[in-house]
Amino acid sequence: MDIATAAGVGLSIVLILVSIVLGGGSFIAFIDAASLMVVIGGAIAATLISYPLPDFLSVFGVSMKTLFWKVDTTGDIIKQIVSLAETARREGLLALEGKVAEIDNDFIKLGIQMAVDGTRPEVMEDILRTEIDAVATRHATGKGLLDCMGRFAPAFGMIGTLMGLIIMLGDMSDPSKIGAGMAVALLTTMYGAIASNVIFLPFAEKLGFISKKERLTMDIIVRGIMAIQSGENPRVIEQKLNTFIPPKQRPSEDAA
Amino acid sequence: MDIATAAGVGLSIVLILVSIVLGGGSFIAFIDAASLMVVIGGAIAATLISYPLPDFLSVFGVSMKTLFWKVDTTGDIIKQIVSLAETARREGLLALEGKVAEIDNDFIKLGIQMAVDGTRPEVMEDILRTEIDAVATRHATGKGLLDCMGRFAPAFGMIGTLMGLIIMLGDMSDPSKIGAGMAVALLTTMYGAIASNVIFLPFAEKLGFISKKERLTMDIIVRGIMAIQSGENPRVIEQKLNTFIPPKQRPSEDAA
Amino acid sequence: MDIATAAGVGLSIVLILVSIVLGGGSFIAFIDAASLMVVIGGAIAATLISYPLPDFLSVFGVSMKTLFWKVDTTGDIIKQIVSLAETARREGLLALEGKVAEIDNDFIKLGIQMAVDGTRPEVMEDILRTEIDAVATRHATGKGLLDCMGRFAPAFGMIGTLMGLIIMLGDMSDPSKIGAGMAVALLTTMYGAIASNVIFLPFAEKLGFISKKERLTMDIIVRGIMAIQSGENPRVIEQKLNTFIPPKQRPSEDAA
Amino acid sequence: MDIATAAGVGLSIVLILVSIVLGGGSFIAFIDAASLMVVIGGAIAATLISYPLPDFLSVFGVSMKTLFWKVDTTGDIIKQIVSLAETARREGLLALEGKVAEIDNDFIKLGIQMAVDGTRPEVMEDILRTEIDAVATRHATGKGLLDCMGRFAPAFGMIGTLMGLIIMLGDMSDPSKIGAGMAVALLTTMYGAIASNVIFLPFAEKLGFISKKERLTMDIIVRGIMAIQSGENPRVIEQKLNTFIPPKQRPSEDAA
Amino acid sequence: MDIATAAGVGLSIVLILVSIVLGGGSFIAFIDAASLMVVIGGAIAATLISYPLPDFLSVFGVSMKTLFWKVDTTGDIIKQIVSLAETARREGLLALEGKVAEIDNDFIKLGIQMAVDGTRPEVMEDILRTEIDAVATRHATGKGLLDCMGRFAPAFGMIGTLMGLIIMLGDMSDPSKIGAGMAVALLTTMYGAIASNVIFLPFAEKLGFISKKERLTMDIIVRGIMAIQSGENPRVIEQKLNTFIPPKQRPSEDAA
Repeated sequence: MDIATAAGVGLSIVLILVSIVLGGGSFIAFIDAASLMVVIGGAIAATLISYPLPDFLSVFGVSMKTLFWKVDTTGDIIKQIVSLAETARREGLLALEGKVAEIDNDFIKLGIQMAVDGTRPEVMEDILRTEIDAVATRHATGKGLLDCMGRFAPAFGMIGTLMGLIIMLGDMSDPSKIGAGMAVALLTTMYGAIASNVIFLPFAEKLGFISKKERLTMDIIVRGIMAIQSGENPRVIEQKLNTFIPPKQRPSEDAA
Repeated sequence: MDIATAAGVGLSIVLILVSIVLGGGSFIAFIDAASLMVVIGGAIAATLISYPLPDFLSVFGVSMKTLFWKVDTTGDIIKQIVSLAETARREGLLALEGKVAEIDNDFIKLGIQMAVDGTRPEVMEDILRTEIDAVATRHATGKGLLDCMGRFAPAFGMIGTLMGLIIMLGDMSDPSKIGAGMAVALLTTMYGAIASNVIFLPFAEKLGFISKKERLTMDIIVRGIMAIQSGENPRVIEQKLNTFIPPKQRPSEDAA
Repeated sequence: MDIATAAGVGLSIVLILVSIVLGGGSFIAFIDAASLMVVIGGAIAATLISYPLPDFLSVFGVSMKTLFWKVDTTGDIIKQIVSLAETARREGLLALEGKVAEIDNDFIKLGIQMAVDGTRPEVMEDILRTEIDAVATRHATGKGLLDCMGRFAPAFGMIGTLMGLIIMLGDMSDPSKIGAGMAVALLTTMYGAIASNVIFLPFAEKLGFISKKERLTMDIIVRGIMAIQSGENPRVIEQKLNTFIPPKQRPSEDAA
Repeated sequence: MDIATAAGVGLSIVLILVSIVLGGGSFIAFIDAASLMVVIGGAIAATLISYPLPDFLSVFGVSMKTLFWKVDTTGDIIKQIVSLAETARREGLLALEGKVAEIDNDFIKLGIQMAVDGTRPEVMEDILRTEIDAVATRHATGKGLLDCMGRFAPAFGMIGTLMGLIIMLGDMSDPSKIGAGMAVALLTTMYGAIASNVIFLPFAEKLGFISKKERLTMDIIVRGIMAIQSGENPRVIEQKLNTFIPPKQRPSEDAA
Repeated sequence: MDIATAAGVGLSIVLILVSIVLGGGSFIAFIDAASLMVVIGGAIAATLISYPLPDFLSVFGVSMKTLFWKVDTTGDIIKQIVSLAETARREGLLALEGKVAEIDNDFIKLGIQMAVDGTRPEVMEDILRTEIDAVATRHATGKGLLDCMGRFAPAFGMIGTLMGLIIMLGDMSDPSKIGAGMAVALLTTMYGAIASNVIFLPFAEKLGFISKKERLTMDIIVRGIMAIQSGENPRVIEQKLNTFIPPKQRPSEDAA
């Protein structure tokens, strides 16, 4: 689980609660179910129109991924590939069959399985690269959806505030109610700003960041697996893959 | 029909109506024909200036397409192409003539018809790719138009509100009317925000999304048809086309 | 003349006039020469600083072009080129000399004249392509200028409103004048929004759209003329040029 | 000197002064040294943080260049290069040495001097192209700086207004001073908008425009000088360089 | 240490303090711990969600780098490389081993060390270019983080102001407190604008600027070191590297 995501969300909530207390406000004044419904419901509705249903539904899975994300460090990935390459060198490609079950990473597993099955190299590379593209597209759609909600939430916040102001302005017979009316009207704008800046936009940002890292890792894996299949020397494979990562992050050569 | 589009539009309307009721407002206060006219009329006028008339008129067809859109799943398209390739392999290209009538997809039909007519391969590919470009341009123009209306609707909403404020400020002899005057003035801003965020921008977004998917499908079809014409083995065609889609979405090989 | 541009401008004016009447305002309250001067004068001044004088002056010609624009349909252009190719095939390149006077399109005329004069093909293509680039640059500058005015007009509208508010706030001795002062102050913002959204931005948009279509047409012409000069078969020329336009828009083959 | 820049700045000042008079305001109400200091000082401070000192200081030279800019028309440049090519053809490359002193344009001078010195062609082209890149980078940095100030000036205008409002709201014991307080508070926003829209953004825009033209001219010069060095025929050089400019702007061929 | 950064930050602080004094405000009215906490805390929280923790933590190091940054002038770098090339020419590559300790620049040191160790050229170039990419990525992430905080700080400023207004509007029983309530509410917007425009955005801008310069320098170093390794003539190396910098900045040739 990515501690920063949880810490950021928690910190935001604490900050908002503490400043209500310090400002002398009551929590009740900040809670209005109808306002929340307009902002979140509106952002969901506009996003439903913007994306086909299956893509929309996938956003939840994608957001959870952001919360519970764990990228294998590139150094570990390279070590694992080099170790598989050594097995293949010593005992032949088919010996990898016994190791498939031990592999955590699904993408390495897919590649090794195809190598063991004797898939032709060019088909194998095509399939692995299509998989990378599919993951990238899935991430880009998820990021697009979250950005979309981040744009629509404040827009519906403003629509809600305008509606509240119009209702308030239509009945100003009791001046003492004007302040309360405006306070309620402003709630939707506040909800929209919080939903957008605490949830939608930061999650979209992190998803984009994670996606870039994951694609780099998958790219390293494809090169490693293709090299294993063509029977390259494990030492050469290690040296090649290591050029993808800066010197400081490289696994020490004697440890491999 | 794309259920998400309808659901999103319906949900937006319900949300707005419910929040008026919950806010204690009357529906009548939210309806003003002149305000609606300024916002929608203004957005249409500005878009008419921005685009030639034929392109402007095509926007309605394009929007309807968004509502009633049905992309053949790529897996089905590949199955169909492989089946046509098998027929061509067994009985010759001309045998496809009898199958043309059974083909639903207009683009496959165009390609197969040309193959049957003995059109030269390079001309055939040029014509099919021009068709893809034409579809992409049509979609891009449609998306541009909707984005345009999504930008101009709030602008005319603001112009309407400024006009309302100027009228109200010019006659403040009766203070009790000030509230009502401001309420009416704010209506155009609200209409502009709703039109833009419920209709124009989400429809533009979905059109762009659909366009990308449709171009991918058409690209797969072109490759399939060119392969059929050059008499390639149906199994090889299937394997090639399958590399365009991620493993999970592939039709099971024995089903083809 | 492009009917959509005129219709859009007319519709905007009618909408604004009608909503003043429906809103119960007087036209006089919406007219203020000084406010108009600040907004339009300011936008012109800022654009003068942004562009060299000759480029600035050309904007009027360019805008008129937008109003009175008539692109030859690509189908007609292709027919004309094929007809010239037939003459060249039958009677030789020099026979085109007699036809030059009949050609409407200046760009085709320039190309045919060079072909008749025996200009070397590579020089000819260079000159024609430079002409396309020059037209594209002229359009891009015109669009840039209009976009510039579309950005500066609302900015000077806001500057005018701030100036009006500062004057009003400086003398609040007579509260009954505050409303009128604010109304006048808001006029510049309204003028800026109208000038930008009815004139500058939509004209810029259309100019960009027209430019793209014109460049495509000029590109087709260059290919056609180069093919005529190299003495290609008119049927082959027709087939080649037709691949640039989608099937539905093609002139029927037997009509050519 | 570029007349449009001076005219635009002058026109803006006149417009602002005239509208203060027409609006019935006093000039004194629009002058506040502290407000000016916050806006201009703040924009300078933020830009100082954004750019290293030497780059920041160069902005003044760059802005002056915008005011006193004079690009040689491309036609004159080509004439001059063709004339140098004729001398080189008739009397040899070394004969150009005597002509170097007559050349106005520093870039042509640099190139001809290197040709006379017998610099190897590939080194010569590298050096000339590096010089083009250096000029382009200098212009881009200047434009970036001006854009930066154009963004920060309104931001500090808003900060100043917020500070003025907070001071005013903190002491509302004398209601008659509220108007004056708000007027002063709004001054900074007005200053920021004027500085940005009359000075920084239009100057940035013009600098970008000039830069593009200058790079095109330098590109033509490089091609011309390389052609002179390789001893090409002056007529061929002229024809080649002329393809860079549209027919209407070409020097008449017999005049060269 | 980069004097411009310090000067810009100092100037901003002085400007703000002086204008409070000139505006007749008290410093105490501008200090509110809770408001500061919402703005800075909120920006940090949203950025924590946007970036993984290790990347977030690196932002401080990166910002310090901006303050204490010192790029070797490119001219000095070239002199140093030429001097190393001379040693290698005269005494062989291994003679550079004794010079490694004298080299300040870590990147040159890494390259020379590898050359001395006899690393294969293609591996060496791969490793050096990966290092450049790693530095560029680190800078881009740092700039992204600062831009992120520059966007979120004003957003949380607005959220804080909305919360303050809602609290104030909820209790308007004592009209004399309304002004003070609004003043406090506006503080967060002001803090957000200052944090964004004095700190986050200008630091992001400078980091981007520095990054571009540093990558150019590293690129020159890679070319120089590869040339040293392949045993090129020091004079040729100097001439090649000098083409990367404009004539005026070149070290005088006889000084090398």
